[in-house]
Amino acid sequence: MTPPLVLGIAGGTGSGKTTVAHRIREALLPDVAYVDHDSYYKDQSHLSREDRLKVNYDHPDALDNELLADHVRALKDGFAIDKPNYDFATHARQPESTRVEPAPVVVVEGILTLALANLRSLYDIKIFVDTAADIRLMRRIRRDLEQRGRTFAEVRQQYYGTVRPMHLAFVEPSKRFADIIIPEGGENHIAIDLVVGRIRHFLRERQEWQASQDLTC
Amino acid sequence: MTPPLVLGIAGGTGSGKTTVAHRIREALLPDVAYVDHDSYYKDQSHLSREDRLKVNYDHPDALDNELLADHVRALKDGFAIDKPNYDFATHARQPESTRVEPAPVVVVEGILTLALANLRSLYDIKIFVDTAADIRLMRRIRRDLEQRGRTFAEVRQQYYGTVRPMHLAFVEPSKRFADIIIPEGGENHIAIDLVVGRIRHFLRERQEWQASQDLTC
Repeated sequence: MTPPLVLGIAGGTGSGKTTVAHRIREALLPDVAYVDHDSYYKDQSHLSREDRLKVNYDHPDALDNELLADHVRALKDGFAIDKPNYDFATHARQPESTRVEPAPVVVVEGILTLALANLRSLYDIKIFVDTAADIRLMRRIRRDLEQRGRTFAEVRQQYYGTVRPMHLAFVEPSKRFADIIIPEGGENHIAIDLVVGRIRHFLRERQEWQASQDLTC
Repeated sequence: MTPPLVLGIAGGTGSGKTTVAHRIREALLPDVAYVDHDSYYKDQSHLSREDRLKVNYDHPDALDNELLADHVRALKDGFAIDKPNYDFATHARQPESTRVEPAPVVVVEGILTLALANLRSLYDIKIFVDTAADIRLMRRIRRDLEQRGRTFAEVRQQYYGTVRPMHLAFVEPSKRFADIIIPEGGENHIAIDLVVGRIRHFLRERQEWQASQDLTC
């Protein structure tokens, strides 16, 4: 069996990395196993409600990176995984997991997916979605105000408190590990088409190789 | 006839853009028409030897961008072009030109290929090769000392005099027009493979489309 092609897609908050990852996924369905790093947030249900709010959710240690690495390795070996589900309202891992079947392409997406060496070593193609900091901030403020019911004061406090320092400490430096950088995010159709086209070519080669194996056997 | 796919490849001096462009070209031969912006330097033979050295060769006006645009349009329309040859020692256009035949893929390469709107509008895929300024400088110094017989004082003077200011004024800002950014240049095999794979896919689709046309006719 040919191992799957594994893509790591990172980028700062509001960069459009999730949109890029989703568009790649949609274009390649059903050949994609999709793994979002966010689902691997550590369960904080042992903490009081007050203490849960004090956790730095923008630091790599807030995520179960070992489990994610195990899951990606399992998908590479052709096994299904039970991806955890995380409840952002309670900061707790939910009891039900989501089964993700192995597929010829594995997409791993999240702000810190290129920041950690144990994850980086698993990817065939490392993509960083790069968008100007002011545009990323504007998108984040809008999302938090309109979709998450936060006040501007809360957004501002979190941004200066953890989002920005962690971005500068972990996300931005991880750009240098990228094989390609996609500017502007989800509306960059040419870059997305480039990646999708390359993967289609890989899938086709794989299909032809398998057909030739079937003939010989 | 399907029009060719036109790539514009830019990046600062020493970024590795020429290596990237050559690798793409070599991988796709004989399906590539290669056009380097450097060949379109304006002839300075009407100037005295002293005045030729005063020309700012890092400014877009030192190049015959209209001729380059005409040539790219001709290649898109399926016509061969007579690419000028430029002698960097005398700053003069040479009498003989080089014939470039039309091909399914056109590669246009040079530091300023994304800096000019009339050129940008001709590309299907815009690539910027992005390498740290210190690495680019180190490569340039080495090239100028070892291959061009310049002294370090000359290299330094040219760098501060025109290379750096023109880079900041024209090359660096042109990065924002790129569809994809390739970090580190010629040794980034994954990015080059990504672009080459995408183009092979395009060539194959084109071939299949033409075969289907041949069948219907």
